[in-house]
Amino acid sequence: MEVKTSKFGQRMSELTGVRAIMKDIIETLKSAEGKSFLNFSAGNPVVIPQVDELWRKITTELVNSKDFSNVVGRYGASKGYEPFIEAVLKDYNNRFNLNLTEKNILVSPGSQMLYFVAANTFGGYTSEGEIRHLTLPITPEYTGYGGVSLHKECIKGFKPLIEIFEKDHEFKYRLDRDNLTIDKNTGCIFTSRPCNPTGNIMSLEEVNFLVEKASANSIPIFFDSAYAAPYPALNFTEMLPVFGGNVAHCVTLSKAGLPGERVGFVLADENIIKPLEAFQTNACLHSSRMGQAMATLAINSGELQEICLTAVKPFYMERMIAMQEAAKKFLPNTIPWFLHRGEGSIFAWIWLRDLPISDWDLYNKLKEHQVIVVPGSTFFPGIQDKSWKHQYECIRLSLTVDKPEIDQGIKIIGKVLSECYS
Amino acid sequence: MEVKTSKFGQRMSELTGVRAIMKDIIETLKSAEGKSFLNFSAGNPVVIPQVDELWRKITTELVNSKDFSNVVGRYGASKGYEPFIEAVLKDYNNRFNLNLTEKNILVSPGSQMLYFVAANTFGGYTSEGEIRHLTLPITPEYTGYGGVSLHKECIKGFKPLIEIFEKDHEFKYRLDRDNLTIDKNTGCIFTSRPCNPTGNIMSLEEVNFLVEKASANSIPIFFDSAYAAPYPALNFTEMLPVFGGNVAHCVTLSKAGLPGERVGFVLADENIIKPLEAFQTNACLHSSRMGQAMATLAINSGELQEICLTAVKPFYMERMIAMQEAAKKFLPNTIPWFLHRGEGSIFAWIWLRDLPISDWDLYNKLKEHQVIVVPGSTFFPGIQDKSWKHQYECIRLSLTVDKPEIDQGIKIIGKVLSECYS
Repeated sequence: MEVKTSKFGQRMSELTGVRAIMKDIIETLKSAEGKSFLNFSAGNPVVIPQVDELWRKITTELVNSKDFSNVVGRYGASKGYEPFIEAVLKDYNNRFNLNLTEKNILVSPGSQMLYFVAANTFGGYTSEGEIRHLTLPITPEYTGYGGVSLHKECIKGFKPLIEIFEKDHEFKYRLDRDNLTIDKNTGCIFTSRPCNPTGNIMSLEEVNFLVEKASANSIPIFFDSAYAAPYPALNFTEMLPVFGGNVAHCVTLSKAGLPGERVGFVLADENIIKPLEAFQTNACLHSSRMGQAMATLAINSGELQEICLTAVKPFYMERMIAMQEAAKKFLPNTIPWFLHRGEGSIFAWIWLRDLPISDWDLYNKLKEHQVIVVPGSTFFPGIQDKSWKHQYECIRLSLTVDKPEIDQGIKIIGKVLSECYS
Repeated sequence: MEVKTSKFGQRMSELTGVRAIMKDIIETLKSAEGKSFLNFSAGNPVVIPQVDELWRKITTELVNSKDFSNVVGRYGASKGYEPFIEAVLKDYNNRFNLNLTEKNILVSPGSQMLYFVAANTFGGYTSEGEIRHLTLPITPEYTGYGGVSLHKECIKGFKPLIEIFEKDHEFKYRLDRDNLTIDKNTGCIFTSRPCNPTGNIMSLEEVNFLVEKASANSIPIFFDSAYAAPYPALNFTEMLPVFGGNVAHCVTLSKAGLPGERVGFVLADENIIKPLEAFQTNACLHSSRMGQAMATLAINSGELQEICLTAVKPFYMERMIAMQEAAKKFLPNTIPWFLHRGEGSIFAWIWLRDLPISDWDLYNKLKEHQVIVVPGSTFFPGIQDKSWKHQYECIRLSLTVDKPEIDQGIKIIGKVLSECYS
C-alpha cells in the first residue's frame, strides 16, 4: 500500500547528519563475518559502574517511596515534575547565584525535543512569510540540529576561524565575528558549549559578543550545555556558563547516565519559556516522570553532582589524554594532522589539513582496515559554501573505546594516512 | 525582554480544547477558601491499588536485573526498546491472529506525540501547496487533536448522527456517512474507539466504511485505541479492533497505570511507520525506555492484560453504573437529558437537549454550586459550523470520583438544570 506524505512529512523523513552514515556502519558491523572492528563511531556513552550503581540505588529508593504511585500513575504538569523543578532551581540558584523561579524552567523529554520545539517556535517563517533563520554561529556543531527545523532552508551555519598550534599538532575553533550575520531575519541562535563534537569551549568574550548580538535583535540564544557543569561536568578546562536576558541554558542528563530516560530542561526568561511550554504541551503533553523523579533524589542528595566530578569527568579525561598520547606517538609527524584542543566532550576531533581524499573516502578506506570513524562533514549543518574544503578534512573519534584500542586504532589510522598523503 | 515567535510558534502557543478551561478550573480550586468542590473535571486516571502494586513489583524486578544498566544508561533505537517491541508483537500476533513484524511498529513517548507527528506527516500541505486535512469523521472527539496540527485550518471535524432512546434518557452517536467528505484533500483520518470522551464504540460496519474510504484515497486511518483491549480493556461492551491495510492501530499505556511514563505505540503498514519513525527521530530521538522495559515484563508475564480485566475495567464499569443510576434517580424526568451509552471510557457524557444556556454558562453556574464539570464544546475540534447547537449542549463528567460524590454531584446538577429549564 502507498500513502502520500505532506511537505513536512517529506522534510522530516530525511536522514540528516550522523544518521545518514549510521545505517552504513550498522550494516558493516552486521556483515562483519568474524572480522572484529575497532569502532570509534559510538555516540552512546559508556555505562560507568559507579554511575550505574547510583541510579540503581536511587531507583530502588523511588520504588519504595510513597511518591512512586504519583510519579508513574498520574499525568503531570506540562512544565515538568514539580519536585524535580524545585531541586534544579535550588541547585542552580545556589551554585550560580541566580534568582530563577518556576517561570524560568521547562522540562523536556530529552534536549533534542527542546531543540525541535525551539527551532520551530522562533525559527521558520513569520505570519507575513518572512524567513527567520536558526543560526549556528560556529560550526562544526551538534549533528542533530540538522534535522530539527521543519524548513531546511532556515538552518544557517557559519564557518569558524581556525587557530593553529602548528608544532603541537593542535588547533582550536574561534568565532568569526566579522563574517557572522545576526539580524532581523535571525529567529534564534543555537550553539553547544562545550561543543559537541569538537570539545571546543567558546571564550566568555565570544559568548558575550553573541549574547549582545542576540539581545540587540530580540532573539533567544540557546546554549546547549549537554557537556557542561554541574551534570555531567565534562568540561576539562574551566568554563563559566551565562544566564539571564536572552540566554536559554539547555541541559540534558544523558551524559550523566540517563540517556535512555530522556530528561532535559531549559532555564530562560519567562517569555522564552512560555511559547516553548505551550508548543511542547500540544505536541506531547509532558516529559516522562520517572527519570525526573530519579534525578530529583540524586540532585537533592548531592550525589549526582559528586559522581559527575569523581567518576564521569575523570573517565573521559583519561580517555582524552590517551587519545592525545596515541596521536603524538602513532600519527606521522610529517603529516599535517591536528587534534582539536580537548576542552570537554566524549569525542576527539581530528583535522587533516589538505587531506588528498574526502572524509567519506577516508572513512571507507579505514573501514577496509577494520577501523570505523565518523566523517566530519556530517557536523556542518547549514553551511552553504559546499566548496569550503575544511568541512571534508575532519573525522570524529569516540572516547568510549579503551586505551589499548585507542592505541591500536590510531596506529592503523596513521598508516592509512601515510598512504593517503604520499 | 521580548522575543518574536514564528507563525508556528504562535499557532502552537494556542491553548486548545480542554486546556483552555483547565486554567480556570485550577484557579477556582486554588481560590476555594475552605469551600470544597465536587470535581468531575479530572482527566487523570485513578491510581488503583492493585495496578500500583503491580508496577512497583515489576520496577523492583527491573532495577535488580542486568538489563537496567542498558535501559537507563544507553541511548536506544529510534523505533523503540527491542524487548518491548518483541513483547507487543508476540501478544498482538497471538491475540488477534496477525503477522506483524518489527517493521509494523513504532514506539512513541505517549500517543499525543504520535498524533502530532502523524497530523503533520500526512496532513498539512503538499510541496505544491495543496491542503491535506486531518479529518475527524465523528465528533465529539479527543480534545488533544485540536492542538496537534501546525496548520489549524487543516483540522476538519464532522458532525455525527444522533440516535435517541427517548424513554431511557440515553443516546448514541453514529457516523453520518452521507455528509462525510473523504477525498484527495484528506491527508489522514483520526478517530478514537472507544471514543474519548463519550465512550461511544463505533460499529464494525461504520469502521469498515471508513477503512474503505481511506483505502480508496490512499490515506492512513488512525484508530486511537487508548481505551481498547488488551491494555487497558476499558471497553464495557464487546468490540473487535481492525488491523492491516491503511489502518494504524494506536495504543497508550496511560490508562493501564503508566500515564506518567509516556508509553505509546502504533501498529501499521511499513509505509505508514517509516515516515512517522523518521519524523519522530528528528524531533526527539526516541521514547523513554524505563516505561517500555517495565511494560515488557508485565506483558510477557501476562499480568498487565490480567490486571486490566480484573481491576481496571471493573473499577470504571462500577463507576459508570453508579453514574447511570444517579442520573435516573436525581435528574428530573421532565428535562430532556440524555446520557451517552457507556460503552467504554473513564468519562460520562451528558447531552442536554435544548439547554436554554450555553455549556460554558452551565459550567459557571455549577461552579457556583461547588460542582465542576467540563463544558462539552471543547470536544468538537475542527467543526466549522459554529451555529450547530448540539456542541453547546453537552458536559463531560469524570468517572474518577466515587459513588457518594457521584450521587451528591448529580443531585446538584439536577437542581441547577431544573432552574435552567424552568
